[in-house]
Amino acid sequence: MARPRVLVVAGTHGNEINAPWLLDQWQRNPALIACADVTPVPVIGNPAARAQGRRYLDRDLNRSFTLELLARADDPAMASCESSRLDREIVRAHELVSRFGPEGPEGCVVALDLHSTTAAMGSSLVVYGRRPADLALAAAVQQRLGLPVYLHEADQDQQGFLVERWPCGLVIEIGPVPQMLLQATIVEHTRLTLEACLAVMADARRQQLVCPPALIVHRHLGSLDPPRDPEGRPDACVHPARQGQDWQPLLSGDPLFLKADGSVIPYEGPDGRVPVFINEAAYGEKGIALSITEREVWPVEGAVPEALQMLLADD
Amino acid sequence: MARPRVLVVAGTHGNEINAPWLLDQWQRNPALIACADVTPVPVIGNPAARAQGRRYLDRDLNRSFTLELLARADDPAMASCESSRLDREIVRAHELVSRFGPEGPEGCVVALDLHSTTAAMGSSLVVYGRRPADLALAAAVQQRLGLPVYLHEADQDQQGFLVERWPCGLVIEIGPVPQMLLQATIVEHTRLTLEACLAVMADARRQQLVCPPALIVHRHLGSLDPPRDPEGRPDACVHPARQGQDWQPLLSGDPLFLKADGSVIPYEGPDGRVPVFINEAAYGEKGIALSITEREVWPVEGAVPEALQMLLADD
Repeated sequence: MARPRVLVVAGTHGNEINAPWLLDQWQRNPALIACADVTPVPVIGNPAARAQGRRYLDRDLNRSFTLELLARADDPAMASCESSRLDREIVRAHELVSRFGPEGPEGCVVALDLHSTTAAMGSSLVVYGRRPADLALAAAVQQRLGLPVYLHEADQDQQGFLVERWPCGLVIEIGPVPQMLLQATIVEHTRLTLEACLAVMADARRQQLVCPPALIVHRHLGSLDPPRDPEGRPDACVHPARQGQDWQPLLSGDPLFLKADGSVIPYEGPDGRVPVFINEAAYGEKGIALSITEREVWPVEGAVPEALQMLLADD
Repeated sequence: MARPRVLVVAGTHGNEINAPWLLDQWQRNPALIACADVTPVPVIGNPAARAQGRRYLDRDLNRSFTLELLARADDPAMASCESSRLDREIVRAHELVSRFGPEGPEGCVVALDLHSTTAAMGSSLVVYGRRPADLALAAAVQQRLGLPVYLHEADQDQQGFLVERWPCGLVIEIGPVPQMLLQATIVEHTRLTLEACLAVMADARRQQLVCPPALIVHRHLGSLDPPRDPEGRPDACVHPARQGQDWQPLLSGDPLFLKADGSVIPYEGPDGRVPVFINEAAYGEKGIALSITEREVWPVEGAVPEALQMLLADD
């Protein structure tokens, strides 16, 4: 009757410092985060990047969990070949999966990945794809806390997220907060959201999970970026009328970007699409000034909570 | 009758990206920033750090302008000795002074250094010491824009600021904005403040400088930091009641820091002291959670505007 183990990752990006701080404090004071019926396994995602205060060293760790990259780290020829040294984040991704993945010696069945954003999104959950256990967890947390859920799927440019390598997992995303800044409210929102996830899993473990009749998701459609100059630098800012307006629907013609000469680039697209991650500092290099989503209401069938309950039941 | 040259530095810290963006745009469109009677000389302070999106590579460039460090870069023995390679920022500081310093081939008489902060300080000026020409520039800009002026002096731990190596100079500090984030309002406040400085210098150049009867300064007294754990990490956050409350006077007993267990560390000190740079992301590594100032009203004597007028007059 061993309790199911839940991986709690903080600092997957080394310059998002609030969740790692919370984990440090939690390790010193286990009463800080209520947790019953599951065993949390806290781990710092990218300790080397954290030590340097950088998002990553060689490449984004949270884009390094594709099966193809993980296979590279498994290949002894690659590992021994000096000239083709693997990016340190690929090595780290492989290490995390080998050790804490469902088949690993310290295997976990669920992964919660704690992030922060410079975008004014408040607290939200990010789900990758449509696995029923993920949707059950998101739906039950949404019912408890009223959080928006961002469904990320089918973006060929953005692949290889950590939680995809566990049978169930999601990202807790808290903002707005600058990189490298510890802020009490961000820590507290991280703590409350993590606690809600753990409470939902405890319910599921006891086979008492209650999901709401519907899950509201904001489904990822794509991303927008301002024009860029020949050096790849943005040639316009997010328009001040849009800055900080995450989750607020766009209408065709709304001001989107502002150029230095005062000219405005408007949004051109269907009315009612919902922007998220507006001006996230780390996404500049990815050519993403904001992402566009569609709000959808999905009925939650009985198979959804059952998926999470089965996952957390004894073998 | 050559116009006086004014060095306009942006990106002294490579992860403060708004002012460099403004300078890039300005070079493409000279009408973007009004400027008369003086010749602005725009330069990126630390292009190598900017390219990497980091505050600095080896050491803080804006603490590298002490005479002692600059002398090291002058020493041919140092320059040629591989094992004692100079920090790249010391080399860059030396390069900036050699080239644009008052005696340099592209010499400037004034330096304006454009920064941004994660602290909620709005727009402000920072003056280092009490040079009359600096105070004249600050007083006249304060009269135009109503900006607070932070007077930094006599802090043995914080020395070697760029503007100190020019006969006149100050820092324009705009916030709040996360590092690595381009934000239209921050660009615009930078532009307006820079324009006001240039307009004041144009007045002084025409020997028509009018200063207000008094300058309000917030004089630096020292800095505070929360307790730290054995690894040097903060063991408490800035209290949410104090976060974002830059320029708001402290009373003894006010909540200052908040620990993870909910306990509060209060401010202990004289009433009325004014905090600035509350939770500036880059100052964590310097052990500065906030700085403490005293608000003072200084009469502006006639010698003060004269100092700036003389500096900008023809030889």
